[in-house]
Amino acid sequence: MRKIMIGVMGPGTGASETDRQNAFELGRLIAQKGWVLLTGGRDAGVMDAASAGAKVENGLTVGILPTADDRGISDAVDIAIITGMGNARNNINVLSSDVVIACGMGAGTASEVALALKANKPVVLLTDHQESKLFFTSLSKDKIFLTTSPEAAIRLVNELLTARR
Amino acid sequence: MRKIMIGVMGPGTGASETDRQNAFELGRLIAQKGWVLLTGGRDAGVMDAASAGAKVENGLTVGILPTADDRGISDAVDIAIITGMGNARNNINVLSSDVVIACGMGAGTASEVALALKANKPVVLLTDHQESKLFFTSLSKDKIFLTTSPEAAIRLVNELLTARR
Amino acid sequence: MRKIMIGVMGPGTGASETDRQNAFELGRLIAQKGWVLLTGGRDAGVMDAASAGAKVENGLTVGILPTADDRGISDAVDIAIITGMGNARNNINVLSSDVVIACGMGAGTASEVALALKANKPVVLLTDHQESKLFFTSLSKDKIFLTTSPEAAIRLVNELLTARR
Amino acid sequence: MRKIMIGVMGPGTGASETDRQNAFELGRLIAQKGWVLLTGGRDAGVMDAASAGAKVENGLTVGILPTADDRGISDAVDIAIITGMGNARNNINVLSSDVVIACGMGAGTASEVALALKANKPVVLLTDHQESKLFFTSLSKDKIFLTTSPEAAIRLVNELLTARR
Repeated sequence: MRKIMIGVMGPGTGASETDRQNAFELGRLIAQKGWVLLTGGRDAGVMDAASAGAKVENGLTVGILPTADDRGISDAVDIAIITGMGNARNNINVLSSDVVIACGMGAGTASEVALALKANKPVVLLTDHQESKLFFTSLSKDKIFLTTSPEAAIRLVNELLTARR
Repeated sequence: MRKIMIGVMGPGTGASETDRQNAFELGRLIAQKGWVLLTGGRDAGVMDAASAGAKVENGLTVGILPTADDRGISDAVDIAIITGMGNARNNINVLSSDVVIACGMGAGTASEVALALKANKPVVLLTDHQESKLFFTSLSKDKIFLTTSPEAAIRLVNELLTARR
Repeated sequence: MRKIMIGVMGPGTGASETDRQNAFELGRLIAQKGWVLLTGGRDAGVMDAASAGAKVENGLTVGILPTADDRGISDAVDIAIITGMGNARNNINVLSSDVVIACGMGAGTASEVALALKANKPVVLLTDHQESKLFFTSLSKDKIFLTTSPEAAIRLVNELLTARR
Repeated sequence: MRKIMIGVMGPGTGASETDRQNAFELGRLIAQKGWVLLTGGRDAGVMDAASAGAKVENGLTVGILPTADDRGISDAVDIAIITGMGNARNNINVLSSDVVIACGMGAGTASEVALALKANKPVVLLTDHQESKLFFTSLSKDKIFLTTSPEAAIRLVNELLTARR
């Protein structure tokens, strides 16, 4: 039976300390819920912190790597999907996630939020980046959910999963 | 010898009348310059209008289709690249363009602008959508160029191509 | 820590009864070894039988789907990677597998064996299809391993994994 | 109006002198017919020779590159499609070709022939590699066409295009 998979997307090397702390906490809470964590899989920023958080709670972590081998993979990734297709893999990240959480913002993350909207996936934005909130809510009124803490983000994800059934 | 290729990205069915008029004019001017036009190839909105504009001037038009066959292709596309990979093809659109012009805005277009920034490509934004301008200039100070007319957009593209040499 | 993942590739609706029995047994043995099973994820043929076999032993099953949603997924897949990129996903199947086992033969399976060789991955061929054996050994002397039973295939995989370390 | 595009696939650095001569002649004849040539785009083997042949007759050449930029591109490619997705681009090669000609054989070429069959595309095999002929005709009775000269290959392509209409 297919497991519920929650994507946590965010900056790699450009992640702030707050982004990384939020990502770690998101990973922890996702694992506590029994959901699988999906990230971009690399050993940097939000991807790495979220995966590390999930492992603290013995969660299962999936990393969708842009590279053609597993160099640069986060130590906290259990299942490595090696795509060899660069940032085109961002579309796989969002298609494979039941809900996408964007933790922080950057060009890669923006592409994932936009691709998620294009695929009709709900997106929870966990950021205080004002321009992101205005932009993405201008693109979609009903698929973008704003929040300010990992706990609130997870409550939103839970509601979205429940509403879907 | 590889020809210069300029990508024109924008909404499909969601394009406004202004978007379509701008796209048609962009296609016309790109062909006049002797550049190849690249679009998402479908028979809708900005893609279709830009390709039609280029054909008026006997330009060469390339369409990178999301579908696995050529159903839904614009009549004005000469070279159909059939990817069968949905919106993951948006990354190919930007990697293959020397400069990307975003004409109007939507979720698909936003993903292309973001992927272009991720790939370090210059992007000319031709839109009066205020949230887009603020958001993308907040992501990148030096790769986003704002403009308000097709003519000004083409002048910018020309300068960007010249500066690169 | 990244888990070892073994890919089992083979025909979907074109699978023979022997192919399906072999695939089921391969899935069972892969799970017994504690490896993760990777397949093409669909509810047909070798993919479905291998995943079902792994679940009998409480193994973990990953399915890399060609589709843009999870329609047509095998009930025995735990982790669904939804690529929306058709058979281009075959390259992800082989890049993500530590060793590829081809169980039976068809056009899709042939593309996976060929892509695996291109990526320098070892491939175990479990088939009595004579033309396949001659063809693939003519393409590669040292990456193709012929075998006639699931048990022998798993022994080969084990040796290949050990030799790699 | 979409132009007819003929794909010529074959080994890169592993191409034989005969493969390269055949590829050059195929490119020349494809251009003479007014068809667009599609190849894998790299500066090696069959891709490079076919593109060079087409340019002798002022044909139009499209190269679908595996890389994320245009390093390693053949000088004889006019339109560079930069995929950044490695050998997953082989599926785009075959989906975008009206007919695929395999000139010589290797692991990459084998993946393209197999993906073409999977996509129901006709494939002309121009090779004296006996194992290839036996293998691919065993996979498909009605989509594989064997031939021994570039001229005969082009006659076959012409018949296939005519029959399709």
